[in-house]
Amino acid sequence: MSEVREVRVRADELAPLVGDLPHNVALIEAAIRDAAENDVELLVLPELATSGYYLRDVEEARSVGLDRSDPLFERWAALLRPGMVLVVGFCETAGDGMYNSAAVLGAEGVLSVYRKTHLWDAERDIFTAGAERPAVVTTPVGSLGTLICYDLEFPEMPRGLALRGADILAVPTNWPLIPRPHGERAPEVIQAMAAARTSGLAIVCCDRTGDERGGRWTEGSTVISAEGWPVGVKSAARQVDATIELRADRWTVGPRNHLLRDRRPELYSD
Amino acid sequence: MSEVREVRVRADELAPLVGDLPHNVALIEAAIRDAAENDVELLVLPELATSGYYLRDVEEARSVGLDRSDPLFERWAALLRPGMVLVVGFCETAGDGMYNSAAVLGAEGVLSVYRKTHLWDAERDIFTAGAERPAVVTTPVGSLGTLICYDLEFPEMPRGLALRGADILAVPTNWPLIPRPHGERAPEVIQAMAAARTSGLAIVCCDRTGDERGGRWTEGSTVISAEGWPVGVKSAARQVDATIELRADRWTVGPRNHLLRDRRPELYSD
Repeated sequence: MSEVREVRVRADELAPLVGDLPHNVALIEAAIRDAAENDVELLVLPELATSGYYLRDVEEARSVGLDRSDPLFERWAALLRPGMVLVVGFCETAGDGMYNSAAVLGAEGVLSVYRKTHLWDAERDIFTAGAERPAVVTTPVGSLGTLICYDLEFPEMPRGLALRGADILAVPTNWPLIPRPHGERAPEVIQAMAAARTSGLAIVCCDRTGDERGGRWTEGSTVISAEGWPVGVKSAARQVDATIELRADRWTVGPRNHLLRDRRPELYSD
Repeated sequence: MSEVREVRVRADELAPLVGDLPHNVALIEAAIRDAAENDVELLVLPELATSGYYLRDVEEARSVGLDRSDPLFERWAALLRPGMVLVVGFCETAGDGMYNSAAVLGAEGVLSVYRKTHLWDAERDIFTAGAERPAVVTTPVGSLGTLICYDLEFPEMPRGLALRGADILAVPTNWPLIPRPHGERAPEVIQAMAAARTSGLAIVCCDRTGDERGGRWTEGSTVISAEGWPVGVKSAARQVDATIELRADRWTVGPRNHLLRDRRPELYSD
């Protein structure tokens, strides 16, 4: 039997209000407290959870922007149990720049901030695309990678994180609802399932809900095992709770193959 | 409205007999004739359709191996209607070497041969892994890429073909049946759906059927649109017929995004 490590994860599909920082902070803090009380080890919250998504312009974004040294992050870290990890999307101000970012927090404070590198649609009018690859962050729940929404539709991104040692991938998202054939999962979930199985990477996608300036959401929060299958069920409170099992030999497939070592990178260059 | 090009495709899920070349040649030729009579423009047949899969050893493989200059290929080409394309997996001999290969044929003859670059399990005891990237072949049905079975589980492979201009990807496979959660598609199909949507690439996967030395097959032949959705239904004769629609603007997503131009290759290196 292969060694198995278990991680209790939650995606909490919040309904932020656009431009209302105090309201969204209250939502986030309630979500952290509830997760801590329920022994969640990794809590993932949506993209731009602090600000809402359909920000009108840079001015509105700036009015709800947070610098990464904002005391709010320390306050949230203080709400985490020891060993607990939070990934939360936020609207980041950094000098004159604005970024669609996600913070990784442990009980001791901010561990890492990732700036979304693939911007969707009108995000480009407000945010600057991140210039750095997402880091693999050593956390109490394992080696954690973070992507934001549209980033995940570039298979190079989850693959790169897996090759750099990520065990679990947290993906704050705001998936706009698009048509799909009856009975099918959201296409973004299918891409996440493929990414998980391709690289033996567990993935926690946290989408959002709520009405916002006419926008509708997929409400597709999904926890995906390192074998590529959705696990856990969304509660009436829009929380997906699941236990991820990370087998020590999860890259081994069949009697003689290995998901990562079987790669032929010399054939992959563009 | 975007310009749309339509291609009538078929995956014909044959049941080759291992080590019985004459039987398999008869199956292949019947499949070509039937497709030609039914106005199929692109016919995809399984991996190792000439030889069967669970070959005991190199000696048995060699007994059913075909050199790529074998007159059989010209005979098959002569069965194609003008404008028709065939992709068929075969057991290739080349001097002392053996390869798990796929030939792309037009009515005028062999257009290209691809040697599988990611070998599965005991294939390594018989075949040498191909050393070359799959070519994008200009054919009457469009710019065609070919991968074989396990190759498709490396997302770098379909992505590379799309970046080099492929419209359609033909994938001869022999998917061994593995357990999956009730109600789920085969995981290989999910990976193919993700690869299709990721790169605006239509994909025709042709699996096999039949009993062979205790091996069972997924029987998962699937035609996938460039938007990532299965199209067509498998007939009682195990043929999946579908019309692929290739929109000229299929890489455009949403108002301002593009599946390929939005890539950030500077962030993708290992």
